[in-house]
Amino acid sequence: MLSKNKIKYIHSLELKKNRKEECVFVAEGPKLVEELINHFACRLLLSTPNWLKQHPHLNAQEIIEVTSEELTRASLLKTPQEVLAVFVQPNEESVTNHANQGLCLALDDIQDPGNLGTIIRIADWFGIEHIYCSLNTVDVYNPKVVQATMGALARVKIHYVDLPSFITTLPTNTPVYGTFLDGNNMYEESLSPNGIIVMGNEGNGISDNVSKLINQRLYIPNFPKDRPTSESLNVATATAIICAEFRRRLT
Amino acid sequence: MLSKNKIKYIHSLELKKNRKEECVFVAEGPKLVEELINHFACRLLLSTPNWLKQHPHLNAQEIIEVTSEELTRASLLKTPQEVLAVFVQPNEESVTNHANQGLCLALDDIQDPGNLGTIIRIADWFGIEHIYCSLNTVDVYNPKVVQATMGALARVKIHYVDLPSFITTLPTNTPVYGTFLDGNNMYEESLSPNGIIVMGNEGNGISDNVSKLINQRLYIPNFPKDRPTSESLNVATATAIICAEFRRRLT
Repeated sequence: MLSKNKIKYIHSLELKKNRKEECVFVAEGPKLVEELINHFACRLLLSTPNWLKQHPHLNAQEIIEVTSEELTRASLLKTPQEVLAVFVQPNEESVTNHANQGLCLALDDIQDPGNLGTIIRIADWFGIEHIYCSLNTVDVYNPKVVQATMGALARVKIHYVDLPSFITTLPTNTPVYGTFLDGNNMYEESLSPNGIIVMGNEGNGISDNVSKLINQRLYIPNFPKDRPTSESLNVATATAIICAEFRRRLT
Repeated sequence: MLSKNKIKYIHSLELKKNRKEECVFVAEGPKLVEELINHFACRLLLSTPNWLKQHPHLNAQEIIEVTSEELTRASLLKTPQEVLAVFVQPNEESVTNHANQGLCLALDDIQDPGNLGTIIRIADWFGIEHIYCSLNTVDVYNPKVVQATMGALARVKIHYVDLPSFITTLPTNTPVYGTFLDGNNMYEESLSPNGIIVMGNEGNGISDNVSKLINQRLYIPNFPKDRPTSESLNVATATAIICAEFRRRLT
């Protein structure tokens, strides 16, 4: 039996303020919960009898068997999917620089939850383990971000930092890449196996404060090259193409 | 003054059935409307006085100056943006094969409007002019698709076809590409400047009926290569990486 208070609690977690206060986040659906439950402490799990029967050895502080109707009332999704879990946010470690050992991403005020989730999934695919997000980037524990990661959140570490300050503290020989419509054709540039790739805000691109710290300005060529374009690619799309190219060079 | 009937009419166009009956679609926002108005006949345009003043020579059957409040009531968006237009759907030309002159995309039951819109935008960036959609692919005139194309809809032609039958009618030497988790590393394959790249449904990938018609099975390698993964990339993300690679080979 699911209490009204529990439903109210779960819905309160749509707000960042409440997630932060409680230090938790919500994830839904069998695939996602099965991935995350091995990586994050689970405070509360709601499940239909069916899914629960298939997962007898769950490590969760509180497990409540619910009917489909109860799950629908608790769910933050349009189409609830068998299981909903409230996980504990991991402690923020002190931010360290990983850009000298491998390739990292930095996100300068990404606003759309779907974009952030998709970018985390792309990072996971290409073995990028650390993403530095500017303080104004959308909250990674926003339920829409969590759902869009499809579980990649279990493997990619997200650090919120004051991005210009953070980049300033990096060793001066650290490659700091960014994409610009007037950058250099990325296929003609040398790309390093380590460093940071900065991706900018959906509407405004990379901010001036960050832009001046970038030491390799890249451009994803459109086709045919001489076709003028005022257009740009979606930021997640651009991230995918760039990460693929960095990784192709290494193989 | 905006009548209740006009508002009702616009909202009715959220449904495919009504769009089809009226043979129109809705687009909103200055950037999008400015792009599309040169390519599609405009049946009705609602605008705030400000935007209208900046566009004195509009080619539209009916123009109504509206207040912000009226626009909010008519808009299909959460955040209305100055202008809303109802455009006429172009006549469906008889479907012809463009895969022998250049690169085309085929979409096998893409369901998510955001994905279709993003894919059209990617096609535009990479100079792919024709997309063949299976009959169960989401409607390109769905307002969410239209908004996500960011205007690329003006330049990329979308054809709805019975996909297996269509591919069967292509000359036998037409390259038909598809991505599969057990395909060949695309960086090691020869890629043609013409042909069709098939992208599959979000959950199920490429259907069996279409799968057997594919003559080059590709795989986007993850990194590091020996890291096992049960994951996949979002379909729009995968489309972007593949199109970029086909175009890189040509430059």
